[in-house]
Amino acid sequence: MKNRIQKLTAIKNAKKVDAFLITSLASLKYLSGYFFYFEHGLSPFQLLPAALVVGVEQQASLVLADNETQQLAFIDPSISVKTYESYVYQKPIDHTTQFLLQLGEAFKQAGIKSGRLGVELNALPASLAFFLTAQYPAIELVDISAEIAHLRIIKDEDEIASIRRAANLSDIGQAAVLRLAKTGMSELELFNLVRREIEESVGTRVPLMADFVSGTATATGGGLPTSKIINDGDLILTDFTPCLNGYWGDSCSTIVMGTPTMEQRSVFNLVKEALEIGIHSIQPGVQAREVDFAMRQHLQAKGNFGHHGGHGVGVIYHEEPRITPYNTMALQPGMVIALEPAVYSADYGIRLEHLVAVTNDGCEVLTKFNHCFQQGI
Amino acid sequence: MKNRIQKLTAIKNAKKVDAFLITSLASLKYLSGYFFYFEHGLSPFQLLPAALVVGVEQQASLVLADNETQQLAFIDPSISVKTYESYVYQKPIDHTTQFLLQLGEAFKQAGIKSGRLGVELNALPASLAFFLTAQYPAIELVDISAEIAHLRIIKDEDEIASIRRAANLSDIGQAAVLRLAKTGMSELELFNLVRREIEESVGTRVPLMADFVSGTATATGGGLPTSKIINDGDLILTDFTPCLNGYWGDSCSTIVMGTPTMEQRSVFNLVKEALEIGIHSIQPGVQAREVDFAMRQHLQAKGNFGHHGGHGVGVIYHEEPRITPYNTMALQPGMVIALEPAVYSADYGIRLEHLVAVTNDGCEVLTKFNHCFQQGI
Repeated sequence: MKNRIQKLTAIKNAKKVDAFLITSLASLKYLSGYFFYFEHGLSPFQLLPAALVVGVEQQASLVLADNETQQLAFIDPSISVKTYESYVYQKPIDHTTQFLLQLGEAFKQAGIKSGRLGVELNALPASLAFFLTAQYPAIELVDISAEIAHLRIIKDEDEIASIRRAANLSDIGQAAVLRLAKTGMSELELFNLVRREIEESVGTRVPLMADFVSGTATATGGGLPTSKIINDGDLILTDFTPCLNGYWGDSCSTIVMGTPTMEQRSVFNLVKEALEIGIHSIQPGVQAREVDFAMRQHLQAKGNFGHHGGHGVGVIYHEEPRITPYNTMALQPGMVIALEPAVYSADYGIRLEHLVAVTNDGCEVLTKFNHCFQQGI
Repeated sequence: MKNRIQKLTAIKNAKKVDAFLITSLASLKYLSGYFFYFEHGLSPFQLLPAALVVGVEQQASLVLADNETQQLAFIDPSISVKTYESYVYQKPIDHTTQFLLQLGEAFKQAGIKSGRLGVELNALPASLAFFLTAQYPAIELVDISAEIAHLRIIKDEDEIASIRRAANLSDIGQAAVLRLAKTGMSELELFNLVRREIEESVGTRVPLMADFVSGTATATGGGLPTSKIINDGDLILTDFTPCLNGYWGDSCSTIVMGTPTMEQRSVFNLVKEALEIGIHSIQPGVQAREVDFAMRQHLQAKGNFGHHGGHGVGVIYHEEPRITPYNTMALQPGMVIALEPAVYSADYGIRLEHLVAVTNDGCEVLTKFNHCFQQGI
């Protein structure tokens, strides 16, 4: 885990802020290593998952609930951690009060008493905002959400390594679909077999967003797996977006059970070409919209697929650079991008996706599997 | 889905508020039916999952992202739904601005221009709070979080029916553990087989919080399943907390692989007795701490188990009434409570849990399985 706190200096200068209070899950992961395990929803024992305070001399402390100390393994050791009592059975605890006490300590240690404080207004609870304005009347809150999101677009080497590991989970999932899919199974049965392989490769549970549909449902582009039975001739569309310790992977494949129609075979090949064209169009300096255009143009004869050509991936599964017809953002080394061209017809859909990291002279494909349309071929 | 919005009248009177803006996931589910599917974390396309506006005449509208229209099936039809553009590929969208536009419409329709507005400050983003104070200077924000949490303690019939369905998923899980556990399997392998049975009973994915540990790890009380192999003589502790459309179930069981020691057998029986004692102690008017005391006293000879005797369950998996040594809250019909007495020794732990609904003359046990220590017996 590389310390990215010094990167805040750019925001300090641009927005003339003196210190920071970071509360979004994405920025907490990005700057401190802290990862909130979200599979169970929000915790009833916490005002918010954690808060990172960065002082005028970049002294950093993380305010953390005492039921989250297993997080200490992920947190940059240069960050001082302040835990607060979140729940005990012996007495009632107001976790909000306990949180605010430790936050006050962190502010004291960081030398924050006045000046402009960079915060993420969409991820800052109003209770906390009003506490700050009441307790520190000389502090002015400045929204730096957009600036932090902008920082995150270019990934560090260790981030690309984290994304590569998450991408590998996608690979494991796609290989398992191809190997394990059988007619007569339900989507949900196959999904559970595949997820098990992903989780066993890590050795514990893995949060996994997934489109996992078969038959005519592939025409809609996705959805959760259901008890629908997989039949001969069905297409199966599988889009795996796993999260490994806070970094996401992403890939999509579409396979056919048995033999495809001539048209399906030709559409599959066309989408695969579009994906390859997209990958080869990636170069530093190329605009995001040019990559989108290259793929979309190749699929033109089959209609517009009706969604983006891709998107950035990192501590959020969908961020800049958005690969869309309007986006003039120039690609740069260190960007990580999922490309996902598709063709949807009335009764089936084919979407193929790889995850790539932009390099100095093109890109590295982080998802290593090869898109196969038929089993055993 | 019963409309619970009229219950806000009590808060209106007690806190002298004129209208409400509801933004916590728990209250959104409770009042409107809206359930945010949290298994993938927060959405990058939304300021917040949804917002419920309740006007001076209790006119209600829900502001919802247009990528969540599948939620419409769950939302009370008397609530007017206002969707906003959250993401499209054709142009950049500022979803915060789009959200605020629809919120303004909802305020207009609800006749909210001034007066006291009931909000949940811990679940209200500061961006939204500052928008309100800037746009509606005659509105005063009043925190009603505690009052809504208090309302939720007594469940309606339809809520108990929802919790019963979620409790049934726990039953399916416990039965599957007893039937499928084999030595030589990893915890994770068994967990995946069990979760598959839970999900297949519903026909799609089910968010599931679970302690799922074996061997000496049972002494710690829980944790995620890992690649640890289940050995002969191991105990397996399985605490299933599934969420079905926003309502939670909860149960815990502990089984032994093969033959238990005499001591383990006797501790299992003791914990089972403690659970039965707890269940039989439940009556309207009994204080929460009396239930805790009854169970804790029965286990006294084995040391203090070091956590609560139980907790309320509903749209949050852990709420009032907390069954703790200090809690003087009197039980009432309609409360739903998980009881979970335990004994932890140096190298193993046994925890047994049932979920019950308080009735006029005792309680109904919502989890229907019988705690068995050994397979095939």
